[in-house]
Amino acid sequence: MRLSDLPTPALVLDRAILLRNIDAMAQAVGRHGVALRPHMKTAKSIDVARLIFANPHAKTGAIAVSTLAEAEYFAGHGVADILYAVGITPRKLEQVAKLNAANARVITVTDDLETASAISAHPRPPRTLIEVDCGEHRGGVAPDSPAVLEIGIRLGSSLAGIMTHAGHSYAGRTLADMQAIAEAERAGAALAAKRLMDAGLPCPIVSVGSSPTALHAERLEDITETRPGVYMFGDLFQAEIGTIRPEDMAVTVLASVIGRRPAERRIVVDAGALALSKDRSTEATAQDYGFGLMLDLLGRRSFGTSIIRRANQEHGVVELDPTADLPEFPIGDLVRIAPNHACLTSAAHDRYFVVEGSDEVVAIWPRVNGW
Amino acid sequence: MRLSDLPTPALVLDRAILLRNIDAMAQAVGRHGVALRPHMKTAKSIDVARLIFANPHAKTGAIAVSTLAEAEYFAGHGVADILYAVGITPRKLEQVAKLNAANARVITVTDDLETASAISAHPRPPRTLIEVDCGEHRGGVAPDSPAVLEIGIRLGSSLAGIMTHAGHSYAGRTLADMQAIAEAERAGAALAAKRLMDAGLPCPIVSVGSSPTALHAERLEDITETRPGVYMFGDLFQAEIGTIRPEDMAVTVLASVIGRRPAERRIVVDAGALALSKDRSTEATAQDYGFGLMLDLLGRRSFGTSIIRRANQEHGVVELDPTADLPEFPIGDLVRIAPNHACLTSAAHDRYFVVEGSDEVVAIWPRVNGW
Repeated sequence: MRLSDLPTPALVLDRAILLRNIDAMAQAVGRHGVALRPHMKTAKSIDVARLIFANPHAKTGAIAVSTLAEAEYFAGHGVADILYAVGITPRKLEQVAKLNAANARVITVTDDLETASAISAHPRPPRTLIEVDCGEHRGGVAPDSPAVLEIGIRLGSSLAGIMTHAGHSYAGRTLADMQAIAEAERAGAALAAKRLMDAGLPCPIVSVGSSPTALHAERLEDITETRPGVYMFGDLFQAEIGTIRPEDMAVTVLASVIGRRPAERRIVVDAGALALSKDRSTEATAQDYGFGLMLDLLGRRSFGTSIIRRANQEHGVVELDPTADLPEFPIGDLVRIAPNHACLTSAAHDRYFVVEGSDEVVAIWPRVNGW
Repeated sequence: MRLSDLPTPALVLDRAILLRNIDAMAQAVGRHGVALRPHMKTAKSIDVARLIFANPHAKTGAIAVSTLAEAEYFAGHGVADILYAVGITPRKLEQVAKLNAANARVITVTDDLETASAISAHPRPPRTLIEVDCGEHRGGVAPDSPAVLEIGIRLGSSLAGIMTHAGHSYAGRTLADMQAIAEAERAGAALAAKRLMDAGLPCPIVSVGSSPTALHAERLEDITETRPGVYMFGDLFQAEIGTIRPEDMAVTVLASVIGRRPAERRIVVDAGALALSKDRSTEATAQDYGFGLMLDLLGRRSFGTSIIRRANQEHGVVELDPTADLPEFPIGDLVRIAPNHACLTSAAHDRYFVVEGSDEVVAIWPRVNGW
């Protein structure tokens, strides 16, 4: 099967690039001697997880997930050690308990005292990490707050450690920014962990990580694991902030040309807001790519900076690079669109059509979407 | 089953509101005596289509779709007359031919001369409409251009009429704007149709429509059908531009509170960028709702203007209305989020949990997503 045999739009994953990205992160994390707990929210695929586990440069086997649907899927494929890295609610404990009764080892996360009570009162309480805030200001208690110890005590024998997420690394633009945020992430988690241990509480897991901080951290002392996710695939935003090189974007959307207005140097493709998502993260970077960058059928940047300027539900309006020498784009011509945000773009698709540099489809890998 | 039994996030559809919206549009379109061809890109559900067909105020039975997956799904449920309202490519003709060989009557759309050749050369050519541009500047040839007749002649016996889409009605903000855009849409399609007929070419279908123009059109002479879609569900954006009343938003996302920061008047819910989409259409309206407006479990506006200010993959950070007297939001509390854009939000979910004003789930309706 070739790309030209696929319906469009379709999600294309280049396995060769994926393997490069997997290896680069495994090496970056491996040099610190901490475990790599890949966050599978981006790939949502057991086939991708297996490639990460097979890499020799980092200690792996455990994963993080963003939904209980992912937890169930990966547990069903034999991955036992799963961190559900989104704050748990009392009601969701039931589903976690069911998975754990079936031999999974799902770890949960909380930053809330009442929820900690619900966990320790549960007949089958999951091991639980206390979420601390290292500057992202989304979830988590302050690492130096009394709440860390209060929640730790309340969790009782369920307490398994500390977790934090430096999501604000996405606002970093220089290597120095990233190193500083990585150090704040490390120091916050380490401080909270030390306070637990000083109080005689257990803290076997100290979990940090986003792709930029996992890659750029200068030191990870007192940390046991890191949880990068989007690095596997990369995207325009991660290329702009230096997590990957522009040639290391592993997922793209195959699209057909469905309209053309040569006089206005515009074409229309059948990858719109649903196939690409409405993520506009590159609006905040040096180069704004609209809703995506148009590449050729083999994923090469052959059309300069021709970008999706407008995204309606099934229509992507491409503004062709005014300075580039471009071919005609007859109706039905195939192109590939590099996305701003690989996690959101991939989530619109239920499978990957896997290639390796060429237009031959070497595998089809399913994804676990939804909740 | 009650809403509190569902996993979160989950897509909730209020059947009572849906029926009101269906009736309002059927009456608006019915008074012109033209057919209502509902665009099923929003609902992607046979259960919703059947409610529209059952309404007595407009002539229905035919639909428009935005993907061939929808065409296949609806054809499989016995809806024969289907307009695939996105420009066709030569390669996609195969799938259309297969559906039509199995008793569907899928109509395609083109604005391209070479594609028209491919259609008429096909062994089983679909009936095809010529797309004209009435001001949206996305697809379509100018209604007064030679291309209308050239494409019409090239289509030969496949020619079935004219189609246009006033997507730029979404930029309208007043009733006068909407009426003017509706008239431009009508006049453009009517002109192109007249030119075909004056040249002795057939033009049985003259198809227009977006929700705002279908609702607000003052006259629809020389038009045979209109294709509104989002009106069925409504959303914050359509409420802002006057297509629906704010109390007529039929779809919302059920979410759990997963974090709270009372000092900052913020909570976090488990409906983030995936469950809601990153659509920011209300950024351009009088009231900016961020990524969505938080309602109570019964869908009532009990929390003032508390909006999703930030949307990460699975986290929605709610900025609580500083002027409202609000309850505490314990972890696990259930709320509902009204979306900016019902089409994109619904597409992240594979089913509707149907309610009728209360928290009782009276049905579960599947959706056809993807391509």
